[in-house]
Amino acid sequence: MNAPLIALSRRLRRTPFSDGVEAAGVKAFTVYNHMLLPTVFRSVQEDYRHLKEAVQVWDVACERQVELRGPDAARLMQMLTPRDLRGMTPGQCSYVPIVDETGGMLNDPVAVKLAEDRWWISIADSDLLYWVRATAIGWRLDVLVDEPDVSPLAVQGPKADDLMAHVFGDRVRDLRFFRFGVFDFQGRDMVIARSGYSKQGGFEIYVEGSDIGMPLWNTLMEAGKSMDVHAGCPNLIERIEGGLLSYGNDMTDDNTPHECGLGRFCNTHTAIGCIGRDALLRVAKEGPVQQIRAISIDGPPVPNCDRWWPIMANDTQVGRISSAAWSPDFETNVAVGMVRMTHWDPGTEIMVNVPGGPHRATVQERFWA
Amino acid sequence: MNAPLIALSRRLRRTPFSDGVEAAGVKAFTVYNHMLLPTVFRSVQEDYRHLKEAVQVWDVACERQVELRGPDAARLMQMLTPRDLRGMTPGQCSYVPIVDETGGMLNDPVAVKLAEDRWWISIADSDLLYWVRATAIGWRLDVLVDEPDVSPLAVQGPKADDLMAHVFGDRVRDLRFFRFGVFDFQGRDMVIARSGYSKQGGFEIYVEGSDIGMPLWNTLMEAGKSMDVHAGCPNLIERIEGGLLSYGNDMTDDNTPHECGLGRFCNTHTAIGCIGRDALLRVAKEGPVQQIRAISIDGPPVPNCDRWWPIMANDTQVGRISSAAWSPDFETNVAVGMVRMTHWDPGTEIMVNVPGGPHRATVQERFWA
Repeated sequence: MNAPLIALSRRLRRTPFSDGVEAAGVKAFTVYNHMLLPTVFRSVQEDYRHLKEAVQVWDVACERQVELRGPDAARLMQMLTPRDLRGMTPGQCSYVPIVDETGGMLNDPVAVKLAEDRWWISIADSDLLYWVRATAIGWRLDVLVDEPDVSPLAVQGPKADDLMAHVFGDRVRDLRFFRFGVFDFQGRDMVIARSGYSKQGGFEIYVEGSDIGMPLWNTLMEAGKSMDVHAGCPNLIERIEGGLLSYGNDMTDDNTPHECGLGRFCNTHTAIGCIGRDALLRVAKEGPVQQIRAISIDGPPVPNCDRWWPIMANDTQVGRISSAAWSPDFETNVAVGMVRMTHWDPGTEIMVNVPGGPHRATVQERFWA
Repeated sequence: MNAPLIALSRRLRRTPFSDGVEAAGVKAFTVYNHMLLPTVFRSVQEDYRHLKEAVQVWDVACERQVELRGPDAARLMQMLTPRDLRGMTPGQCSYVPIVDETGGMLNDPVAVKLAEDRWWISIADSDLLYWVRATAIGWRLDVLVDEPDVSPLAVQGPKADDLMAHVFGDRVRDLRFFRFGVFDFQGRDMVIARSGYSKQGGFEIYVEGSDIGMPLWNTLMEAGKSMDVHAGCPNLIERIEGGLLSYGNDMTDDNTPHECGLGRFCNTHTAIGCIGRDALLRVAKEGPVQQIRAISIDGPPVPNCDRWWPIMANDTQVGRISSAAWSPDFETNVAVGMVRMTHWDPGTEIMVNVPGGPHRATVQERFWA
């Protein structure tokens, strides 16, 4: 069978940067929050090498924002997550697992605190807007919940600071990790955070107003010519090496944050008001019975992981692989898997039922990068 | 630029029928409720002709179900929609616009009433589960809300009755439109409704349990050989001809049901408890200021409508086209558009800004089929 095409329609929304993405020769898309997300420009391997050596501009407009505005915004935000947000100040970003009443994960976004009464939730792939708005109505909170016209554009790679300084001035270099500042571009305010879905360093620009999208894209591409800037996108290999999880791939609403190794982002005892708090108190105390692990898979490069691959030990299933790719730098197949506690210790040897045949594999102490 | 590929990952869920879809030579997918939905097998034109002459089996597992179970199930169901559901009996299906507190559409599913205290909502492309579950929690309702392992498989086309009778017995012919019955397949109960996203007639089988998916697919394919059965999918041309709207394409949460021409499915005065009722009372009385219309676009076949095309009159925008395709049977471009009331009367001549140049167009009295 030939590789299937993506059927484009208005329902799979274009972004303010789509014209630039197409001009740069995008080869494949995925769909994320009903929006197009590029996945390959030259090849996954070439994009990977370039990301680690130069600088890329990523159309991640699909990280849609859920905006909370009003007197009850902070209260609502705390209802959504077991992370205690009381210490968070305006200008700060926080990775916040969002859980339902059973403690199951509904999304794993970054919360951006613009002001005490104004927040953006920069979401992973699920319609969190529906959950947040229905919660606000059900609890009769005094807050507006909306999706604003804000589209993140990421600048990632070792030369990201240089490129950004060229366009926004040297002050951008002073941003600390997961902090944001407001910068000018052609007379418009842009929220810029030091963050992004790679381990190579960089920024995310929250582009407010679709009309300014292509002017900014073109300015970055022009300014970065001497740095070998290229259009890029979240890279499958690099994000697995770095242990960056993907909602919908590595976890679903069946999983608690603790199963996902996100227990350090939960303050279940003090997160008063969190809808899933009661359900999580037990798991916070006793720990989960399965957890996400870095797993190296032996043998030749594995195929694309488009479905869960069973992890086996003595003919019994003890987990499943959710993401995998051949890593040129570590010369092994790097993978993310959910493993039962009987087999999650580092060094444990397991088998993975890859389509085409079983591979030997080993539970790792940590991710690779 | 070459046509972009779809990047497959576990996050874009496969269905119980994906193996059959691939074996049948699927050429393109879209993503719908985080799941793969085939869009082309031979070509959109060939699939269209075949759908109108024979019978097709469609993998529409992406019409996920939201299940409501418990004493407050009916109350919750009524909170979601302005359609008065009090007259609905078990065994009945209903097309129910779902609205938020402003009357904006969140989904346009079919509700399946299994029993007074058990409903399935067969959803269009948005995470309605999040809205329904947060509503149940916020209002402290006594109801369980979940996505069960139920995957619809549609059998559509003029020979659908013959094929279904061959597999499920002649009793299936007696099903009335939008009614369902329970039928046996290999010892398993299947809910089968006379419904589907085409105007060619047919059925939707709510396949409970992924394991029985491929046995049913294969049985239908084998039984239909003499009827020229083929794998198919919702067809862009046929669904526009028939005026079947698509959530996310033709309407979004900005639109009221009345704007979408769905006022006949709203009983705003008697739908007591509906969350969006207050907001809809005014529009129900005064009518909307824009509404969906069938629009014929003159000239040669238009390209794929992957973004809204402005509808113009005297250099002023008076609406937008959201879906369009060349119709071989009606020998014109058939389209769906939202048009302001100044220009929505049948016969009104307008211009459509199709990429590549403007086309003359005409507002139609009704859809084509």
